[in-house]
Amino acid sequence: MRNIKHIKDLARLDLCREKHSGISEVILAEGKEPGDVAEFIMNMAKEKGKAIATKINKKCFQEIKKVVAQKYKLKYYGRARIATLIKRGYKDKKVSGKVGIIAAGTSDIPVAEEARVTAEELGCETIHAYDVGVAGIHRLFSPLEKMLREESKVIIVVAGMEGALPTVVKGLVDVPVIGVPTSCGYGYGGKGESALMTMLQSCSPGLVVVNIDNGFGAGCAASLITRGTNKKTNWKAKQRRQDEKMEI
Amino acid sequence: MRNIKHIKDLARLDLCREKHSGISEVILAEGKEPGDVAEFIMNMAKEKGKAIATKINKKCFQEIKKVVAQKYKLKYYGRARIATLIKRGYKDKKVSGKVGIIAAGTSDIPVAEEARVTAEELGCETIHAYDVGVAGIHRLFSPLEKMLREESKVIIVVAGMEGALPTVVKGLVDVPVIGVPTSCGYGYGGKGESALMTMLQSCSPGLVVVNIDNGFGAGCAASLITRGTNKKTNWKAKQRRQDEKMEI
Amino acid sequence: MRNIKHIKDLARLDLCREKHSGISEVILAEGKEPGDVAEFIMNMAKEKGKAIATKINKKCFQEIKKVVAQKYKLKYYGRARIATLIKRGYKDKKVSGKVGIIAAGTSDIPVAEEARVTAEELGCETIHAYDVGVAGIHRLFSPLEKMLREESKVIIVVAGMEGALPTVVKGLVDVPVIGVPTSCGYGYGGKGESALMTMLQSCSPGLVVVNIDNGFGAGCAASLITRGTNKKTNWKAKQRRQDEKMEI
Amino acid sequence: MRNIKHIKDLARLDLCREKHSGISEVILAEGKEPGDVAEFIMNMAKEKGKAIATKINKKCFQEIKKVVAQKYKLKYYGRARIATLIKRGYKDKKVSGKVGIIAAGTSDIPVAEEARVTAEELGCETIHAYDVGVAGIHRLFSPLEKMLREESKVIIVVAGMEGALPTVVKGLVDVPVIGVPTSCGYGYGGKGESALMTMLQSCSPGLVVVNIDNGFGAGCAASLITRGTNKKTNWKAKQRRQDEKMEI
Amino acid sequence: MRNIKHIKDLARLDLCREKHSGISEVILAEGKEPGDVAEFIMNMAKEKGKAIATKINKKCFQEIKKVVAQKYKLKYYGRARIATLIKRGYKDKKVSGKVGIIAAGTSDIPVAEEARVTAEELGCETIHAYDVGVAGIHRLFSPLEKMLREESKVIIVVAGMEGALPTVVKGLVDVPVIGVPTSCGYGYGGKGESALMTMLQSCSPGLVVVNIDNGFGAGCAASLITRGTNKKTNWKAKQRRQDEKMEI
Amino acid sequence: MRNIKHIKDLARLDLCREKHSGISEVILAEGKEPGDVAEFIMNMAKEKGKAIATKINKKCFQEIKKVVAQKYKLKYYGRARIATLIKRGYKDKKVSGKVGIIAAGTSDIPVAEEARVTAEELGCETIHAYDVGVAGIHRLFSPLEKMLREESKVIIVVAGMEGALPTVVKGLVDVPVIGVPTSCGYGYGGKGESALMTMLQSCSPGLVVVNIDNGFGAGCAASLITRGTNKKTNWKAKQRRQDEKMEI
Amino acid sequence: MRNIKHIKDLARLDLCREKHSGISEVILAEGKEPGDVAEFIMNMAKEKGKAIATKINKKCFQEIKKVVAQKYKLKYYGRARIATLIKRGYKDKKVSGKVGIIAAGTSDIPVAEEARVTAEELGCETIHAYDVGVAGIHRLFSPLEKMLREESKVIIVVAGMEGALPTVVKGLVDVPVIGVPTSCGYGYGGKGESALMTMLQSCSPGLVVVNIDNGFGAGCAASLITRGTNKKTNWKAKQRRQDEKMEI
Amino acid sequence: MRNIKHIKDLARLDLCREKHSGISEVILAEGKEPGDVAEFIMNMAKEKGKAIATKINKKCFQEIKKVVAQKYKLKYYGRARIATLIKRGYKDKKVSGKVGIIAAGTSDIPVAEEARVTAEELGCETIHAYDVGVAGIHRLFSPLEKMLREESKVIIVVAGMEGALPTVVKGLVDVPVIGVPTSCGYGYGGKGESALMTMLQSCSPGLVVVNIDNGFGAGCAASLITRGTNKKTNWKAKQRRQDEKMEI
Repeated sequence: MRNIKHIKDLARLDLCREKHSGISEVILAEGKEPGDVAEFIMNMAKEKGKAIATKINKKCFQEIKKVVAQKYKLKYYGRARIATLIKRGYKDKKVSGKVGIIAAGTSDIPVAEEARVTAEELGCETIHAYDVGVAGIHRLFSPLEKMLREESKVIIVVAGMEGALPTVVKGLVDVPVIGVPTSCGYGYGGKGESALMTMLQSCSPGLVVVNIDNGFGAGCAASLITRGTNKKTNWKAKQRRQDEKMEI
Repeated sequence: MRNIKHIKDLARLDLCREKHSGISEVILAEGKEPGDVAEFIMNMAKEKGKAIATKINKKCFQEIKKVVAQKYKLKYYGRARIATLIKRGYKDKKVSGKVGIIAAGTSDIPVAEEARVTAEELGCETIHAYDVGVAGIHRLFSPLEKMLREESKVIIVVAGMEGALPTVVKGLVDVPVIGVPTSCGYGYGGKGESALMTMLQSCSPGLVVVNIDNGFGAGCAASLITRGTNKKTNWKAKQRRQDEKMEI
Repeated sequence: MRNIKHIKDLARLDLCREKHSGISEVILAEGKEPGDVAEFIMNMAKEKGKAIATKINKKCFQEIKKVVAQKYKLKYYGRARIATLIKRGYKDKKVSGKVGIIAAGTSDIPVAEEARVTAEELGCETIHAYDVGVAGIHRLFSPLEKMLREESKVIIVVAGMEGALPTVVKGLVDVPVIGVPTSCGYGYGGKGESALMTMLQSCSPGLVVVNIDNGFGAGCAASLITRGTNKKTNWKAKQRRQDEKMEI
Repeated sequence: MRNIKHIKDLARLDLCREKHSGISEVILAEGKEPGDVAEFIMNMAKEKGKAIATKINKKCFQEIKKVVAQKYKLKYYGRARIATLIKRGYKDKKVSGKVGIIAAGTSDIPVAEEARVTAEELGCETIHAYDVGVAGIHRLFSPLEKMLREESKVIIVVAGMEGALPTVVKGLVDVPVIGVPTSCGYGYGGKGESALMTMLQSCSPGLVVVNIDNGFGAGCAASLITRGTNKKTNWKAKQRRQDEKMEI
Repeated sequence: MRNIKHIKDLARLDLCREKHSGISEVILAEGKEPGDVAEFIMNMAKEKGKAIATKINKKCFQEIKKVVAQKYKLKYYGRARIATLIKRGYKDKKVSGKVGIIAAGTSDIPVAEEARVTAEELGCETIHAYDVGVAGIHRLFSPLEKMLREESKVIIVVAGMEGALPTVVKGLVDVPVIGVPTSCGYGYGGKGESALMTMLQSCSPGLVVVNIDNGFGAGCAASLITRGTNKKTNWKAKQRRQDEKMEI
Repeated sequence: MRNIKHIKDLARLDLCREKHSGISEVILAEGKEPGDVAEFIMNMAKEKGKAIATKINKKCFQEIKKVVAQKYKLKYYGRARIATLIKRGYKDKKVSGKVGIIAAGTSDIPVAEEARVTAEELGCETIHAYDVGVAGIHRLFSPLEKMLREESKVIIVVAGMEGALPTVVKGLVDVPVIGVPTSCGYGYGGKGESALMTMLQSCSPGLVVVNIDNGFGAGCAASLITRGTNKKTNWKAKQRRQDEKMEI
Repeated sequence: MRNIKHIKDLARLDLCREKHSGISEVILAEGKEPGDVAEFIMNMAKEKGKAIATKINKKCFQEIKKVVAQKYKLKYYGRARIATLIKRGYKDKKVSGKVGIIAAGTSDIPVAEEARVTAEELGCETIHAYDVGVAGIHRLFSPLEKMLREESKVIIVVAGMEGALPTVVKGLVDVPVIGVPTSCGYGYGGKGESALMTMLQSCSPGLVVVNIDNGFGAGCAASLITRGTNKKTNWKAKQRRQDEKMEI
Repeated sequence: MRNIKHIKDLARLDLCREKHSGISEVILAEGKEPGDVAEFIMNMAKEKGKAIATKINKKCFQEIKKVVAQKYKLKYYGRARIATLIKRGYKDKKVSGKVGIIAAGTSDIPVAEEARVTAEELGCETIHAYDVGVAGIHRLFSPLEKMLREESKVIIVVAGMEGALPTVVKGLVDVPVIGVPTSCGYGYGGKGESALMTMLQSCSPGLVVVNIDNGFGAGCAASLITRGTNKKTNWKAKQRRQDEKMEI
C-alpha cells in the first residue's frame, strides 16, 4: 500500500501522486469549507514541502491565512484564484523550455492566469499575451511571433464566446496548441458550449482541448508536454519504475 | 381577398407575396412528390412569369422535365439544387450592386451555391471565392479585397465545422456579413450546431445569421439588403402601398 | 503594426477597428470591474473622441461617473444599459435612412432599447413601436405602415417567448428584417431558445437573426445595412484601402 | 377483473377502455409485424365491432388486406396512414358539433389528415383548410371565419418549421386551440423541436399542445372536447359509474 | 383600428382581446416594475371593469396596494400569486359546468392554485384534490370519482418529477385532461423537462399539455372548453362576428 | 497476471471476469464482424464451458452457425437477440429465487426478452407479464400479485414512451425494482429519453435504472441481487478471496 | 379506502405506504415551508412512531426544533441533511447484512452521507470509505476488500465529475453496485450529466443507477436489496397480502 | 501571396501549410466525390511528394486506384480508412521518440488505427494495445508498463461507452495523455457524448481531448508533441521564420 494520509474521516491525501502521474495532488477549494481546505494544504505542505490549491476566492484565502503556521510561506494569486503553501527551505524543480499563453478577450484573463500560474508552479517559464481575439486579428501576429522565436514548446489559447482563436493560432504555428474554452458569452451556447464545440470541431489538426474554464488542466498538460522535451529534468520513468515497482 | 390560387385541396399559391415581402413565393421541393412540385411551379410560372424551386434533387428534376410545356424554359443548377421555370418572354428585374459569397471548405460549396443562385435569380450580381477557411487563413485576403474593391454591399460567408470564418471576415470588412452555418462536421456539435453557435456568439458585431444549410435564406436577405442600396430599382414602398392598400 | 493602445497588462484597445470593420471597438462592461471599464472608455474617448460601453448597470455607471474628467460628456441610457463618453467638440457622422424597431412585449423593451440606442449612436435615425405582439396582432399594422412610409431600410424585431413576431413582420414588408430573440419566457425553451429557434426556422425568407438578447449586435448590423444604402456618407471602401493598405 | 383478451403471449387487448377513457384501444402499427397488426385489429373488430390502427404504411396495409375476413369492411386513408376495420352492421355513434383543422404548409398535411380522420372516426364532423401559414397570413382569415361561423367547438392547428400559426390563430378565436407541431424543418430545432417550443411558449392563453407529429392524439382530444359540448350523445358519466362500479 | 390604450411609451393594452380570443388581456407581472404593473391593472380595470395579474409576489402586491384607488376592490391569492382588481359594481359572467384540478405532490400546489384561481376568475366552478401522486396511487381514486360524479367537463392534472399522474388519470376518465408539468424535481430532467416529456409521450390519448409551470394557461384552456359545453353563457360567436366584423 | 486469452491482435478475452465481478465476459456482437464474433464465442466456450453473445441479429447468427464445431450446442433466442454456445457436458449453476419481468407495451417485448433470457442464462427463474401499461392500469394488478406470491426477489419493468410503469409498480411492491427505459416513442423525448428521465425522477424510492434498451444489464443486476438472497449458491466471497488473492 | 391522514387542505399522508412499497412515506423538505415540514413529520411520527425528512437545511431544522413536542426525540444529521423524529419507546426493526458506501471525492460526501443515513434509518448496517477516486486508484483496493470480507450485500458508489468509479468498482466485485452521480463538476456536463451518462453507459454489467444527487433513493434501494437476502426479518409478502388484501 | 494551387473552381490546395502549422494539408474524403478526392491527392503528391487522405472507404479507394499514375505509390490502411500517395523517391522525415496507443474495446479499434497510422505517417514510432478497458482493469497494467519503459512521449487513449479509461491511464503515467472518445455506445449519451464528457470532466489533470472519433487529430497532436521532444528533427522555428518571413 502506498503512502496515504487520512484527514479525519473526510480525505485521503495521495502523497505519491506525483511519482505516478507526474503532478502532485492539488486541492480544489471550490465547494469546500475554508477550514477543511486549510487543513488539507497544511498537511500536504508538511508532507511534500509544497501544496497548491485552486479556485480559492478571497474570503477563503483570508481564512487560510489565519491558521497557517510560521514556518510556511503562503502566496495568493488573486486573478488566478490559486494559493500555494511552501515549507521554508523547499526548492522547486525547474523545467527548461517555455509555455505560451494567449487570452482572446479581457474576460478570459482569469482562466488564462490560472493556466499561467499552474504552469509556472509546475516548473515552466511562460510568455503571455492577452486581449488579442479574432475581432481585431492584427493584434495577434506580433505576440505569436515572439512566442515562436523564444521556442515555446506548446501554446495555451484561452477563448470564450465564439472560441475561434485556437483554430486560427494552430493554423499559424507548428507546436501543439491547447484550447481552453471559457464560460464567457451569453444566449445560445453562452456558457462555454459554443467555444468548446468550436475547438473540438476545429479544422486545424493538432489542437487539443480541455473542459470549459479548466485553466488548471491546461497548465498541467502544458507542463507535462514541456518536460518531455527537456533532457535536463531527467524524467527517468523507466528506472524509477524498476526501483519502486508499481504496487497497486 | 388577395389573389390566391388553389391547387387541388393541397396548396394555396400566394401570387402577391412579392408585393408584400419583396420575394415571390418559392417552392420548397423537399418532402414533396415530384408531380406536385411540377404542378406548383407550372402554375406559379404561368401566373407570375417565373417560378423558383429549391432543394430539388436530380430525380425530382427529371420528373419535372417530362411534364413542362413547350413555351417555358426550365433550368437546373445541380450543385445548388435549384430549378427555375421561366415563361418565354419574361424579363428579370436587375438590381445594381454586388453580393460576395465565400465558402470555408469544399464541403460547404453546395450551400454556398444555393445562396449564389438565389441571389442571382433575385437580380443581384455575385462574386465568389471557395475553400478559403481559417486553417490556412492567408488564402482569404486576396478574394476579400476583390469583393470590397468591387463594392459588394453584403458578404455571405458559408462555413461548417468550427464555423470561425464569418467572425474573421466581419473583423476585416465594413459591410454587413451574413453567416450561414453548414451541417458539415462530426462528433460533438457536428451537425452544424457548432458552426451556428459560433456565429451567434461572434465577437464581431454586424454579423447576422440564418439557419444551418439555409443558403436560400441568405440569398434572399442579401438581395433585400442590396436592393435597399440601389436607387435604380426604385423600390417605392410608400406609393405602392397607397395605390394598392393593404387588404388583409 | 496598426495602432493598438495597451492598458496595463490587461487590454489592447483596437483604435483602428472602425476603419476595418465599420464599427469602432465597443466596451462590453459585463463581468468587468467598474474601475477597468472606466479606464477603458476614458482611453477610447481620448483617442477616438467617443466611446460606447454596453451592459452597464446603474452601480457600474455611478462608479464611472466619479472618475470621468471634466472635458468629457458622459451619458447613460438606463433601459438600454448603454453609456457613451464624448470629448467636448466631437461630432458624430450622420447616416441618412431609417431603422425601424419593434418589440413584441413590454418585457422585450430593454433589448429593443439596446438596439435603438446602438443604431442611433452609430448614426442612424430610428422609429420604434413596442408591445405589438402576435397575441393581439391588430396592434401591429399601424406602426408597421408608418415605418415603411418613412422609408425604413431595415426593421429590427425583438421578441421573446414564442418569438413569432419577426416571421409575421417579414411576411408583410419588403425590407430586410433582423430578428432578436430575448430570454423572456419560462419552462421548456424559456431562456430564449424557443424564440431563437423559431426565428431560424422561419418560413419567411429574408429574415436574419442575432443571438439571444443581442440588441447591440442588431443595432450594429442595421447601421451597416443603412450605410450601404446611403450615398452621402461616402463609404469609399476602395480608395481608403488603396491609401492605407491592409497591413496585417 | 375486467374484460381483457390475450393474444398469444404478446398482447392483452383492453376491451373496455372506451368505457373508462372515452376512447377505445387503438392499435399503433409502427414497429410491429404486419401479421401481428392484422391479428390485433381482427380481434378488436370481432369483439367491439370496429378497430382503428394508426401509422400504417402501404405495405403493411397490403398484408392486412390479404387476411381480412369477408364479413369485415376494411378502409385505408393513405395520407393519414390510418386503417379501420368494421364488422358489417356496426353503427358509429355520431357526435354533433364540429372540429376545425388547419395545416400551415403542404408538408404538414399528413399529420393534419391523421387528426382529421381520427376525429371523424371518433364521431365528429370536420372542416379543414391547408397551406395557410404565417408567411402569407392573409390566406388564413377566410377559412378561419368559416370555422367560427359553422360553430367549430375546437380548432386543431398543425404546423412545422417555426410553428407560429397556432399562436396567431388562438389570438383570433374564442374556442380552445390544439397545436400539433410537425417534424418538418431543418437545422437547429428542425425535427419539430422549434415548433413544439413555440407552441408551449405561446403568448396566446388557451392554446394546448400534443407531441410532435401526434395528429392522432389531437384528434382524440378534440373528440372528447366536442362530446362534452353535446347533450345528444348523452355521456352519462355519473350513472354509468353507479351501474358498473369501478372494478380495479 | 380596434380599441388600444397606450400607457406611456411602454404598453398598448388590448381592450378588445376578450371579444377576439375569449380571454381578456391578463397582465404578467414577472420581470416588470411594481409601479408599471399597478398602472397597467389600474387602466385595465378602469376600462374593462376587471383586471387580472399573474406571477405577483408579495412585495409587488404591497406596492400595488398603496396606489389602488378607493372605488376598486383588490384581491390577492397568495399561493397562486394572482391579483385581481375589480371596479365596484362589476359583475362576472358565470359559466356552468365544472373543472377538476389535481396536484400530484404538495410542491405542485402553487401551480395548481394558479390554474384553479384562473379558472374561477374566468367564470368556472372547480373541484380540487392535492397530494394524490402515483407513489401511493390508492389516494387518487376517491377524489377522481367525485369529479366525474359532479360532471367536471375537463380535468387539469399538475405534476412534477416523473410526471406520470396525467397519464394515469387520462386512462381512467372519459373527459379531456390537461397536463401541467411543474419544475419540481432535481438532477437529470429536473426542471420540469422530465414531466413535460412524459406528458407529451403519454400512451393515454386525449391528454393535452401546456408548458412547465403554466397553471394560468391550463386554467384558460379549461375555461374555454367548459364554455363550449354550456348553452347558458350563450357564446354566440357567429352573430357577434356579423355585428362587429373583424376589422384587422 | 491473470488469465487473458489473446485473439489475434484484436481482443483479450477476460477468462476470470466471473470470479471478480460475478458475471463472466459476455460478447456484444453489435458492430462486429460475424466472423470475429464466432471466433470470440468459440474461444470463450472452449475455455469456460459456456459463452453468451448479445445483440445478435439473424444474419450474424447464420454465420456463426456455419463455423460452430460439433461438440458445442448453439442456441438462439430470436426476440432477445441472444445466442449461447455450450460445451457438451457443461452444467449451469442454479440460483433459487425468482425475477419478475414486466413489459409495458408490445413494442417493449424485445428488450424485456433480452432481460429475461439474460437472467435465466445467469441461473435465475423468471415470471413475466407483457402489455400491461398504465393506459389500462387494471391489467397490471393480477400479474403483479402473482410475482409477489411466488416470492420474486426483484422485478424488472421495461417501458418506453412516457415510462410511467416502473414508478407505479414500485409504489405497489416491497422488493427492489429495476426500470429499463426503451427507445419506443416519437417526437420530443422519443428515443427513450422521456422514459429514462421519468424513471430517474421517480417519486417511488427504491427504483433503480439502467440505460435505454439495456435489457442485458437489467438481467445481470437482477441475477446478482437474487444470488445475494440465496444461501444455497454459497457465494463465499470472503474465503474465495483469501484463497486466491486479488492479483492486480 | 386505506388509511390516509389529511393535513389541512395540503397533504394526504400515506400511512400504509411501508406495507405496500417496503418504505414508509418520507418527507422531502426542499421547497416547503419549515412550518409545513414540522407539521408533516409531527403527524407522521405520531401515527407511525417514526418520521424521516430529507433535504433539510440548518435553518429549517431550527424551525422544526422549536415546535417539536416533549415526548419525541429529534435528531439531525448535518452533512446528510436528514432529520428523524421518533416517539419515545419506538423500536426500529433491524436488518442483518451490510451496505458498503464509497465516495469518489470529498465533494461527494454529502450525497454519500445521505445514502448512508438513509440505509441505516431503514435498518441496515453500513461500512464506508470516502475520497478513493480513480485519479489515485490505489486508494480504492483496501476499503473494497474490507467491504467484501464483511459480506456487504450491495455497494453504493457516489461519484461526480467524470463518474468513472462505479464502473471500476463493479469490475472488481460480485455484488450489485448502485451508482449515484453527483452534481460536482463544471463546464460541459458539469452538473452531474457527465457522471450520470458514464454510469448508464458503463461497460461493467450489474451496475444500476439512481438520479443525480439522489443519495436517499440509493439508500432505499440498498435497503430493499439487503432485506431480500435476510431471512430473519421475515418479509412474508405472501401471507400479509392474503391477510390484508390489496384494497385499491 | 503564398503558394496556393487552384483545382477547378472548387479547391485551393495549401502547399505551404506544413511550414506554418507543422502538418501538411490532409484531404478529408468524407462527403466528397471519389473523382475529386483522386484529383486532390494527385495534385498534392505531385507538388509535395506525399499526400494523405482520411475517411476513405473501400469503394472510394477503388476509384482512386484506377486513376493513379505509374510513378506514384498508393497505399491503403483498411481499418484506419486512410490512403497515402507517395511519389517514387520521396523520403519521409523520421522523428525519434514514441507514441503509445490504447483502445478500450474492440469496437474502438478503427479510431485507434486512424490515430496510429496518422502518427506513423507523420514520422513517429508507435506501440499499441487494444481491448484493455476498465471492466477488466487488470489487462491494462502490463501494456502500460511497456509503453513507459520504451519511453513513449505521449499516450493516446481511445474509448467509447463510459469513456473512463483515459482518466484511469492518466492517473498512472507521467506523460501527457490524449483522450479520444468514440461514438460506440447506445441510449443516453450513446453517440460518444458520454465518453467526451467523461474525458473533459476527468479528475486526472494532464488529460487533453479531441472530438469524438477524431483519431486523425489525436495522431497529429501526438506527432507535434513528440517532435518537440526530439532535437534530431531540428524544428528550427526561429530561423525558418527569419528566412522566409510570414507573408500573410
